[in-house]
Amino acid sequence: MENLTMLTDLYQLTMMQGYLVNGCRDKEAVFDVFFRELPFAGGYVLAAGLEQVVDYIENFSFSEEDLAYLESLNLFTEDFIEELRTFRFTGDIDAIPEGTPVFPFEPLIRVKGRIMETQLLETAILNLVNFQSLIATKASRVVTAAHGGPVMEFGLRRAQGPDAGVLGARASFIGGCQSTSNVLAGRRYGIPVSGTQAHSWIQCFPTELEAFRAYARTFPDTCLLLVDTYSVISSGVPNAIKVGLELEAEGHHFQGIRIDSGDLTYLSKAARHMLDDAGLKSAIIVASNDLDEETIFAVKAQGAAIDAWGVGTSLITSKDSPSLGGVYKLAAEGEHGVFHPRLKVSENISKITNPGIKKVVRFYDRAGKAMADLIALEDEVFEEGKPLTIFDPVQTWKRKTLINFRTRELLVPVFRSGKRVYDLPKLNEIQAYAKTELTTFWDEVKRLNHPHKYTVDLSSKLFDLKQQLLLKIHHDIIANIQKQEVDPDVDR
Amino acid sequence: MENLTMLTDLYQLTMMQGYLVNGCRDKEAVFDVFFRELPFAGGYVLAAGLEQVVDYIENFSFSEEDLAYLESLNLFTEDFIEELRTFRFTGDIDAIPEGTPVFPFEPLIRVKGRIMETQLLETAILNLVNFQSLIATKASRVVTAAHGGPVMEFGLRRAQGPDAGVLGARASFIGGCQSTSNVLAGRRYGIPVSGTQAHSWIQCFPTELEAFRAYARTFPDTCLLLVDTYSVISSGVPNAIKVGLELEAEGHHFQGIRIDSGDLTYLSKAARHMLDDAGLKSAIIVASNDLDEETIFAVKAQGAAIDAWGVGTSLITSKDSPSLGGVYKLAAEGEHGVFHPRLKVSENISKITNPGIKKVVRFYDRAGKAMADLIALEDEVFEEGKPLTIFDPVQTWKRKTLINFRTRELLVPVFRSGKRVYDLPKLNEIQAYAKTELTTFWDEVKRLNHPHKYTVDLSSKLFDLKQQLLLKIHHDIIANIQKQEVDPDVDR
Repeated sequence: MENLTMLTDLYQLTMMQGYLVNGCRDKEAVFDVFFRELPFAGGYVLAAGLEQVVDYIENFSFSEEDLAYLESLNLFTEDFIEELRTFRFTGDIDAIPEGTPVFPFEPLIRVKGRIMETQLLETAILNLVNFQSLIATKASRVVTAAHGGPVMEFGLRRAQGPDAGVLGARASFIGGCQSTSNVLAGRRYGIPVSGTQAHSWIQCFPTELEAFRAYARTFPDTCLLLVDTYSVISSGVPNAIKVGLELEAEGHHFQGIRIDSGDLTYLSKAARHMLDDAGLKSAIIVASNDLDEETIFAVKAQGAAIDAWGVGTSLITSKDSPSLGGVYKLAAEGEHGVFHPRLKVSENISKITNPGIKKVVRFYDRAGKAMADLIALEDEVFEEGKPLTIFDPVQTWKRKTLINFRTRELLVPVFRSGKRVYDLPKLNEIQAYAKTELTTFWDEVKRLNHPHKYTVDLSSKLFDLKQQLLLKIHHDIIANIQKQEVDPDVDR
Repeated sequence: MENLTMLTDLYQLTMMQGYLVNGCRDKEAVFDVFFRELPFAGGYVLAAGLEQVVDYIENFSFSEEDLAYLESLNLFTEDFIEELRTFRFTGDIDAIPEGTPVFPFEPLIRVKGRIMETQLLETAILNLVNFQSLIATKASRVVTAAHGGPVMEFGLRRAQGPDAGVLGARASFIGGCQSTSNVLAGRRYGIPVSGTQAHSWIQCFPTELEAFRAYARTFPDTCLLLVDTYSVISSGVPNAIKVGLELEAEGHHFQGIRIDSGDLTYLSKAARHMLDDAGLKSAIIVASNDLDEETIFAVKAQGAAIDAWGVGTSLITSKDSPSLGGVYKLAAEGEHGVFHPRLKVSENISKITNPGIKKVVRFYDRAGKAMADLIALEDEVFEEGKPLTIFDPVQTWKRKTLINFRTRELLVPVFRSGKRVYDLPKLNEIQAYAKTELTTFWDEVKRLNHPHKYTVDLSSKLFDLKQQLLLKIHHDIIANIQKQEVDPDVDR
């Protein structure tokens, strides 16, 4: 990826200049990255994108061309441009590692430092984390539906631009895909690449059989033949069988066929039958064509004889839910390391933020299954020996007592005083970690539709702090209220 | 954008090696880029992305690192890697200019040359054209709904990666947006940038009034205040009025307010009333918060007093239709400039391609309104003096005779023998061109919902060619058919 320093919203820069002009150069702030709703009406999100956030911050630097452009806008003072010239991030960042299942309102990334700096990072961090977390989650759903059958990511041509293709391939791999068709993603991230031939290959030869033979000649040991250019059953599969038998007779292993249109259940069953009858029992059947987790689930349930899945558009664009609504909200502000918790009210209860410097604690039972998460204040301690009663922050009468638990803090230090203190894991390590992490959740939470809602509560201390601040703000608004004829129900 | 040479699907490279190994080094092909369905159930698509396609092709070059990576895959021969080392595009490209309204099955880009080269370009061209055409179209719909009120693109934080934010801002501008919040897009493409302050700014001061005053001090002449942090009517608007009057008293122009939550119709009307009563009649009201063309249309219909619109997620991700299904299909193949038309059959009639080297002719009436498009063979001539009867290619009895028409060919030469022969227009020229082009279509075609279907027919000559080829393929399949017990209805 190129340098992303300028990948920001203009208002981050106008606010920065505002802080400078108004004597807030040393004001400090803590911001949380979190989302409010699970995409796909699903049970979890897989966090992803942290590596790109780290790269962005480590390479942060305005070029002279950037500064000249900003000067040309006639918005910024010379002092401010000078400030940007040597601008670096000097604060602290904590984050939940990539591949961790996460839930609404949990801070995935916590950014602490001079408000001038922390404010500026908002847009790029959200851009990088929202998209990859979304695609890793979508991929995880598709992989769940395929139930062990390898899933290949094929979506580059429909991805929302080059980065979406490349970062989407990375996120899909984290979510459990086996390979990508995307060569640039393969080179950059070491993801296995896969792919054989398109319909145009078949059409460029006088007959399908000649096209198949030509491909087999070129790649005798990785020969997977696309059988639906003319007719899967009448032409494609019989021709593929001929070529497959020729390859096997020459001592090669015939890989199999790909079906890219038509009724996948019917065609795969018929093709399996024909391949088996011909003695090509180890030839696999790959399916593609507008697949998503719902279609894969449905055709598998009907007994489709499909061994592997090529998934494109629906995965790379997360078609049924193409954005994750991650936000970056002020949790505290202060000076010289002394912070005051802040919250944002809203007419919508789910948009009220959680104040203060927070952490996320995951509670496991003795069998290693995750029981609940608690969003707590940073200095809170939960002793593993002691029973702990947690409660729903909205329906506060809903209570649950955890006993005999183990705890784990999800946020880990990534930057301290602007220096990276975190070793970035390799991509295949992240994939393996995500797979293991998902085993700590009950299948009911991972169900594609109507999953069981995993418990995420606030600690008593955080809950009390939030109530106090809400009361205070409400009091301030009432105190400041203007006498006007407005309908109080609409704007409270 | 970085170098996109490796932004391709692996199968393009395996097919290329296949062509090389099978003596097809000089085989030539013509590919068409087209889409089959209008997104949003709308009336048109605005073509976009050509400039990036041109950049991609002009900068095409494998680096030594790229070649080393490809070698490491153990798929490719030394000869093939050597071929790639000096690989450049040497063929011809014709394209419909960016900002032109286009319709299903029309070739937006036509690529002609050695099959080795033309095949390789598929993935990146589709990636670049699909996304920007989609977003330009979405933006055009949003701008149509806003009916003259400026639309600002705000979506970077929810875009599908950095490129999606930057290219999406570019495409949104083509579609008629006035500005973007995205600073990198502003610098790179000269798009006007806009933005003022976020809720975090308001929260960082002890009171809303102090936050407003601090912002006004910093930007007295571009002061647009966010009024919904605490309460729009009870707090935000009254405080904004105070600051607005102070600014005006000091001889500045107070820009206005932004409302980012709540019922936009009610709040904007109430705020307008309050601003007017205070004598701030020229202060504008900007609305944001999950807007799309439907919401804008609805709140405008209810009389909302909103002057300008900030549109984010729905625009930048094209939320209700996040992919354009553009494809790249073989239309002809041959050698030494002699081409044979080819088509691809499919069980789905809409997936059958149009064969041959084609052009798109738009027919205008004497008032300058577009009447119909004809997809025709390259050498066909339609004399402006002569009446022309066109017919629907599926319901062939639906006929229409065009008289007294002017014609225009939409495809223009972009590359000839690998050299660019097209001057890329500036982005503001593209925006102005798109606006003018849209005026040549009846409002009925541009309606957001249930638009009138614009006529796109095949020329008689192309229609006849397609029928002949379909009959021949059908005959070949029957001739080759294998005796098997299959249900002929499922796989015909």
